[in-house]
Amino acid sequence: MKPKNAFYAQSGGVTAVINASAAGVIETARTHRNRIGKVYAGRDGIIGALTEDLIDTSREPASAISRLKTTPGGAFGSCRYKLKGIDENRAHYERLIEVFRAHDIGYFFYNGGNDSADTAWKISQVGEKLGYPLICVGIPKTVDNDLAITDNCPGFGSVAKYVATSIREAGFDVASMAKTSTRVFVMEVMGRHAGWITAACGLAADREGDAPQILLFPEIQFDEERFLERVKKVVERDGYCAIAVSEGLRNREGKFLSETGLKDAFGHSQLGGAGEIIAKLVKDRLKYKYHWALADYLQRAARHIASKVDVEQSYKLGVAAVKLALAGKNAVMPIIERISNTPYRWRIAVANLADIANKEKMMPRDFITEDGFHITPKCRTYLSPLIQGEAPPPYKNGLPDYVKLKNTPVPKKLPPFKI
Amino acid sequence: MKPKNAFYAQSGGVTAVINASAAGVIETARTHRNRIGKVYAGRDGIIGALTEDLIDTSREPASAISRLKTTPGGAFGSCRYKLKGIDENRAHYERLIEVFRAHDIGYFFYNGGNDSADTAWKISQVGEKLGYPLICVGIPKTVDNDLAITDNCPGFGSVAKYVATSIREAGFDVASMAKTSTRVFVMEVMGRHAGWITAACGLAADREGDAPQILLFPEIQFDEERFLERVKKVVERDGYCAIAVSEGLRNREGKFLSETGLKDAFGHSQLGGAGEIIAKLVKDRLKYKYHWALADYLQRAARHIASKVDVEQSYKLGVAAVKLALAGKNAVMPIIERISNTPYRWRIAVANLADIANKEKMMPRDFITEDGFHITPKCRTYLSPLIQGEAPPPYKNGLPDYVKLKNTPVPKKLPPFKI
Repeated sequence: MKPKNAFYAQSGGVTAVINASAAGVIETARTHRNRIGKVYAGRDGIIGALTEDLIDTSREPASAISRLKTTPGGAFGSCRYKLKGIDENRAHYERLIEVFRAHDIGYFFYNGGNDSADTAWKISQVGEKLGYPLICVGIPKTVDNDLAITDNCPGFGSVAKYVATSIREAGFDVASMAKTSTRVFVMEVMGRHAGWITAACGLAADREGDAPQILLFPEIQFDEERFLERVKKVVERDGYCAIAVSEGLRNREGKFLSETGLKDAFGHSQLGGAGEIIAKLVKDRLKYKYHWALADYLQRAARHIASKVDVEQSYKLGVAAVKLALAGKNAVMPIIERISNTPYRWRIAVANLADIANKEKMMPRDFITEDGFHITPKCRTYLSPLIQGEAPPPYKNGLPDYVKLKNTPVPKKLPPFKI
Repeated sequence: MKPKNAFYAQSGGVTAVINASAAGVIETARTHRNRIGKVYAGRDGIIGALTEDLIDTSREPASAISRLKTTPGGAFGSCRYKLKGIDENRAHYERLIEVFRAHDIGYFFYNGGNDSADTAWKISQVGEKLGYPLICVGIPKTVDNDLAITDNCPGFGSVAKYVATSIREAGFDVASMAKTSTRVFVMEVMGRHAGWITAACGLAADREGDAPQILLFPEIQFDEERFLERVKKVVERDGYCAIAVSEGLRNREGKFLSETGLKDAFGHSQLGGAGEIIAKLVKDRLKYKYHWALADYLQRAARHIASKVDVEQSYKLGVAAVKLALAGKNAVMPIIERISNTPYRWRIAVANLADIANKEKMMPRDFITEDGFHITPKCRTYLSPLIQGEAPPPYKNGLPDYVKLKNTPVPKKLPPFKI
């Protein structure tokens, strides 16, 4: 029997290490040529499957695929596109099966977050209904670290290492400027609903007086007066204060600060991102000179300071996905299971896509100190292993040498399809 | 004769490598104990000298001083404080000499930018006038790369490497999101008057289509229509556009965008930093989804991705400063002289403080392309050597392991002085 081809797609916001999972899938498939023909990637994620815009990864040399392990972003393009339910949008599912059939695709690998697990699960169900045998395996990915069941999510450890490093470094800077200039430094980080990335900033503070002294979590409603009192106390104690703020910080009414802003001393609304609002509030009320930073995409693209643990896990989850597919497991996702904290040991386990789909894992309340401004030792024990080890990319001319693939299209066989 | 002590102070905005110069000074002084007694550092820069708040660096073990080479920020504290002219403020100069006399200080090392060169020069003149022999040597430092005479400034190469790496990484991210989501990414960088840091972002673009496709320099007056036209063209060609913006971008009237803002489609003023204004303009006029980042202190504190060339030069300039002082040279500054581009070779030369003081070196116009949106090959040839090589810090528990010195005070001998 001629081996079936595989389809691989990246979904949602990309990370510094999602391409390591792609490398795991492609390299492993290549060692099983008797079972898996070619690996086709969707250009711009699932949209590539719907529009029959497939990339032939077999046209890339092994050296290029290997370099995916050290290249950030999504090498084949990603998308924010969620398939509706089968009943609402049967045509899309039928189109997917039509494309898979035309290109003799028997394996579907979908690399994404909880939305993508939902899509992969739906596709796993539809294959059978439409009489087309397909093995669907999800591969976890999200900097938000909010997938259910898995101990942690690929992509998060590298963001965690980046934000903790960055606020430690900025802390050294502002500490030296505080006598005559900047006293308060604010850094806004990602994580609109769950404070995992905000918490990771806390790893930089080994001892009292280390930056960051204050964390503002999306889980803790923002109390302006308590916050200002704390900033003042920290500046009086340490001479300066470094603050990490979640983009998803909310006020007492549960609304995002970034949408509602705050009033300044003159009653004017201050809008902007959460970081800017917090920085201006400190200036306005406490008269401290401030600086603020918005890490934005820099945090999730910073492959140059990726966590070695994160890179390894991402790669091995790609490998595991192919092995699960070869073992005939449908509608599953390989996940990370923690065996021990000290030394950190982990292994790959398997979850059902149905149990991952559309669920969000929030920060446990006991990971945040009672006053709401920092992480607990329990949180530190959980987070610390995830940022261990360095895995720097190769450098060329002083800059990280990232690969751009050729991304050769697979010739189309079907009429166009409008999405 | 009992050897004289030395005084060392850090001045102005700190960098990822100013402590490497401090290590160069202290380590070299320690190898000349017959000529230089102790090295006292000013706590918070020159303010420490005025208030007799001196730090005894001899209380630090060699291992701690060595770790300064891999620690960002200013280890002894810095300040933004410019001494007025001698005629205007004779009391301050007399106080400095009084403190130096009380602590038997014969060498004055001042690590800073052009303002600091001016201060060091003034002090070099006053010693003689007040009958107190003092050898004053400046040590260059500024991320802005705008000191006269020296080929480049310590601190700049590391910022350059950070910003070029960051926008390359973010470029990979946005390129993969562009099909359905973010199409334009804007990063605001430092450099209010000179576009050196903005130019450094351009190093990431090796070929057409690489990020960043557009640079907005403080030297080039911002033309809204020409800019929008260019963004549109780039997005149509590459699918996405990455833009680096100087915080000092000015409008046609020569005013900072960050102070005057722009009008949106409804005639409302848009304020904020230059990066935010540019990002919102793109959204407002071209309807492209955007993300924007503000690197702020992260860029100048990013010791984890410092340029090896920059670290070496910073250290060796500290060494050279002590050697100049031992050779009896007063009112000078060691500087970098470029010998060749390929291979990059440099040596340390000597300039007079009077020739450095208060001068600003702007970007030559022929370092910017004719259309004003990118760097020329000539600029690339100049910049590229400065970001070469990696010099990572030691890591502990997954994070850079930076040193905090004990900073033991020297017992005071004089009555307090109000500044």
